[in-house]
Amino acid sequence: MNGSGTAPAAPTPSARPAYRRLSVEERRTQLIAAALVLFAHHAPEDVSLDDVAAAAKVSRPLVYRYFPGGKPQLYETALRSAADDLELCFAEPQTGPLTGRLAAALDRYLAFVDEHDAGFSALLQGGSVAETSRTGAIVDGVRRAAAAQILKHLQVPEPGPRLRMMVRTWITAVEAASLIWLDEDKQPPVHELRDWLVDHFVALLAATSASDPQTAGATRAALALEGADGPVGRLARQVLPVVSEAAHLIPSPTSADGARV
Amino acid sequence: MNGSGTAPAAPTPSARPAYRRLSVEERRTQLIAAALVLFAHHAPEDVSLDDVAAAAKVSRPLVYRYFPGGKPQLYETALRSAADDLELCFAEPQTGPLTGRLAAALDRYLAFVDEHDAGFSALLQGGSVAETSRTGAIVDGVRRAAAAQILKHLQVPEPGPRLRMMVRTWITAVEAASLIWLDEDKQPPVHELRDWLVDHFVALLAATSASDPQTAGATRAALALEGADGPVGRLARQVLPVVSEAAHLIPSPTSADGARV
Repeated sequence: MNGSGTAPAAPTPSARPAYRRLSVEERRTQLIAAALVLFAHHAPEDVSLDDVAAAAKVSRPLVYRYFPGGKPQLYETALRSAADDLELCFAEPQTGPLTGRLAAALDRYLAFVDEHDAGFSALLQGGSVAETSRTGAIVDGVRRAAAAQILKHLQVPEPGPRLRMMVRTWITAVEAASLIWLDEDKQPPVHELRDWLVDHFVALLAATSASDPQTAGATRAALALEGADGPVGRLARQVLPVVSEAAHLIPSPTSADGARV
Repeated sequence: MNGSGTAPAAPTPSARPAYRRLSVEERRTQLIAAALVLFAHHAPEDVSLDDVAAAAKVSRPLVYRYFPGGKPQLYETALRSAADDLELCFAEPQTGPLTGRLAAALDRYLAFVDEHDAGFSALLQGGSVAETSRTGAIVDGVRRAAAAQILKHLQVPEPGPRLRMMVRTWITAVEAASLIWLDEDKQPPVHELRDWLVDHFVALLAATSASDPQTAGATRAALALEGADGPVGRLARQVLPVVSEAAHLIPSPTSADGARV
């Protein structure tokens, strides 16, 4: 994709004088990078093409030459680029316990949220002037890609509606928790938020097992890979004392054993 | 609020000829009712003021007299009215097991979603031309009211950030599941969706207990009110066989008992 053979590999926009001749692809990359930084830290309505031109140390007409559609086009292109990064967050090798893979993906996702805070809030909280059906489609594309990745990790070849709804619902919960986290000045510490989101996934997987045999199968397979020292072991040890007080909810061990095992 | 003493209690817009003189309040109510039906079953961009006038059997200028702001004002007013109804869904007497109260609230909420299907999707899926910061604020108001109601049911006088995040996250999950449900032609049957959302809440409450003492207290109190034949008893009996295969995650009963009881 990168057409120029002689130019340095990674152009750093601000360090480079405007009169240096960049290849078309390099210039485009530079403008998108400048726009991304601005859109990450400001609501789209607070970013002007002049800001982008100034950040990239180029003239406003030059920005228009590359993005004749003006700010909406530049916003959409920057969003597309951010969406590509975000989709990569969920690509994780399918080895080891599921909770470890989820935690790694969430670490990358939450780092992205941290880095693009204002832009992330503006985009997902809706009502933004920059929001169109196309930007909505880009965001939905990220959600779909994340859901597909997680279903892959659950190793269910043809996930049914319950399992798909469970995964999509959890992804919405991750988004909502991220927005609340930004809103509450990035509290709790990010690793606590990540651990809670992993716990949330495990709990939801277990609860959905109750009404969906396919999810029950995926849960059994996932739990078999978890270790006692891992997140599920910790979760089980912390939750058991709380729920074990409600012994009245479960028939006596004898009848429970008799019914199932 | 309804000032007229002589008019019949519930005006049915389409059955009434346009020339009958309605009070200002009655006419306003009639126009909002007609708009609500249209906005419930169509995306806002597919509803015109002519449609509203025709449905209410009045002239377009009359609609403008009551809503000089035109369609945006009418949409916002109809949304405000729907939001008031929606907030009432979560008002439930604080007696009996928590899951029964949640189920009753969800039955009302999901009946609302069922009745306002197209409008609900259009509003929450974003990218709609009718979306403004004010419509966004109305939707957020419903979410906040629902969260406040649920926190009341948990009987925690000053809910901390974890419990609040848990409840808000669950409300987002309910919204997301409702949108998926509409998208999948209202499958599964609504009572199964409601039961799953209750299971989701119970699982999330239990999982959040692991890292938050306040939530653990609320969980203990809530479980004490549940019966073995209720949703939590059923959930526990259905989940236990799945997770009990992962006995390697929990230390032997002796050491667990020694550590806690």
